[in-house]
Amino acid sequence: MFAAQYAGEKTFNIQPGTTVPPGPGEVRLSVGYVGICGTDMHIYHGVMDARVAPPQIIGHEMSGVVAEVGEGVKNVVIGDHVVVRPLDYCLNCPACDAGHSHVCQNLKFMGIDTPGAFQSSWTVKSRTLHKLPSNVSLKMGALVEPLAVACHDVARARVAKGEDVVVIGGGPIGQLVAMVAKAKGANVIISEVNATRRQFSEDNGINTIDPINQDPVAEIAKVTNGKGADVVFEVSGVQPAVDVMTEIAAVRGRICMVAIHSQKPQVDLFKFFWKELELLGARVYEHEDFEQAIKLIADGSLDLEPLISSVSKINDIGSAFASMDGNPSGMKALVSLSEEF
Amino acid sequence: MFAAQYAGEKTFNIQPGTTVPPGPGEVRLSVGYVGICGTDMHIYHGVMDARVAPPQIIGHEMSGVVAEVGEGVKNVVIGDHVVVRPLDYCLNCPACDAGHSHVCQNLKFMGIDTPGAFQSSWTVKSRTLHKLPSNVSLKMGALVEPLAVACHDVARARVAKGEDVVVIGGGPIGQLVAMVAKAKGANVIISEVNATRRQFSEDNGINTIDPINQDPVAEIAKVTNGKGADVVFEVSGVQPAVDVMTEIAAVRGRICMVAIHSQKPQVDLFKFFWKELELLGARVYEHEDFEQAIKLIADGSLDLEPLISSVSKINDIGSAFASMDGNPSGMKALVSLSEEF
Repeated sequence: MFAAQYAGEKTFNIQPGTTVPPGPGEVRLSVGYVGICGTDMHIYHGVMDARVAPPQIIGHEMSGVVAEVGEGVKNVVIGDHVVVRPLDYCLNCPACDAGHSHVCQNLKFMGIDTPGAFQSSWTVKSRTLHKLPSNVSLKMGALVEPLAVACHDVARARVAKGEDVVVIGGGPIGQLVAMVAKAKGANVIISEVNATRRQFSEDNGINTIDPINQDPVAEIAKVTNGKGADVVFEVSGVQPAVDVMTEIAAVRGRICMVAIHSQKPQVDLFKFFWKELELLGARVYEHEDFEQAIKLIADGSLDLEPLISSVSKINDIGSAFASMDGNPSGMKALVSLSEEF
Repeated sequence: MFAAQYAGEKTFNIQPGTTVPPGPGEVRLSVGYVGICGTDMHIYHGVMDARVAPPQIIGHEMSGVVAEVGEGVKNVVIGDHVVVRPLDYCLNCPACDAGHSHVCQNLKFMGIDTPGAFQSSWTVKSRTLHKLPSNVSLKMGALVEPLAVACHDVARARVAKGEDVVVIGGGPIGQLVAMVAKAKGANVIISEVNATRRQFSEDNGINTIDPINQDPVAEIAKVTNGKGADVVFEVSGVQPAVDVMTEIAAVRGRICMVAIHSQKPQVDLFKFFWKELELLGARVYEHEDFEQAIKLIADGSLDLEPLISSVSKINDIGSAFASMDGNPSGMKALVSLSEEF
């Protein structure tokens, strides 16, 4: 048993870990693959040290195999391939009461607020588990979590077949949102400043615009015959995107706020009034988003293979993080926790 | 036949008007009462001269009696008491195609973009008319339009029985929104800086908070046991309200944007993400909002009498406007166009 601890200042220590026997309702997993998320990159940069409290085992985009089950666990058996929905909610606050436990007022995000998946053995509550069917590899399983984010965003924005959808920002989540929206039958365009990322989209059959050298407002008006976008996903987190989102949205258009805006940007609230726009915040995922993500991979609706930029062994976790740092051509780096899988 | 023309710079000219015979599908009305709207006050101050193009007959909150009907008009007969839904939409743009003609991309607002109701005789399309039942006076009828705004806002925000609702801004529209939400069975609080307006609310059985001398975030948390407001109506148009709206909203709370923000305020988009908030722009009204407004007055659900601050004759239109100027205790000034009603 070993664990990679984030130790602050872009460093990880690989060290012996503690195998935690599963208590009642818990399951111990042998971890297969763990993806590096944008949030993990923020942690790596030290900007979340106050919340993460290093040294801490991070990581939350994962797949694994059930190694041991605690008392009363009914949903999985030893040997099952699974993924973890890394949300530890309280079931005791107004948000949980209202059925929104995924945005629980006391939510602990596993791998940020509590120890995560960058360890060979991880003990979790069985309620967090979703089973992988036999035709979804553990490597693909590590993409279920970010894909579930995209499923949640697309569901929250109520994307329907035939609608015109613009995704602002072509990072991994933006690409996944575009893929899921396209799978719903929408006409999707990604607006992305980086040429490599635009090429990635085009290679995956998704049209793009370059918001620096093209006028996104004129382009979207042209392709929608003056209507505008039915749905806009803001996945970039920058002021120019916030300026554009209200311009390109159709009358009664929905704007889904996926990005984390650490500053308060200026927002054209007049346009919200004038065009009766709708803004929908979307965070993490619910049970059904994980199930849908697994189904989309299992039934071959989406080919996520191109998203995997690299697969590193756990001993190389430091260089895996370094390779993603400021690298727009990197989409998803996976770390392998076991020689077995 | 006479008309009051807004002539720019806070002046009105009363002069002989033109009686326009109704064409096919049109109706000529004898105008009864016309209310002064916040938008009329903006016009009065000259800030909308570019759009209004004085000299222009303004006014759109009105009631009247059918005086003459054009060819093919089926929905009213001479003598009917009616109100006008002052929206002239094109039925030929993507918004109209999608069933949102009230926010038509080429919408002409009658009384702003085209001549309005401050004239003794007004000829309009019959499709704009809603009939008043016999127990709704023409005086009350002049309040149907602003009440329809409130009905639209409350419907757009999907206010349900038992929900906690905060209305930021206790002007006429804020008061009406609060009344309609309360009639829906919601628990309503108005946040209003002006003591006279707070007193008006309290006298009408609606609780208030003073956002200057009280902490709205703490107050709303207290009365909702830490949940926050299910629905927030932003009816003030100022930055402090925009700061507060995202703080007081519950997880998955809905914020309805009723106010016109002429500047782009800073908005806490992180809170939209974190609490999965929803922002819903709401503008004017639809057919059913007018019908609901008439019903709420007719069945005695709402007592709007206290909202009427004054009733002036048309010759005194200038002083009626002047009396509302910078006067927070003034709610709704009506102007009478006829000695008959």
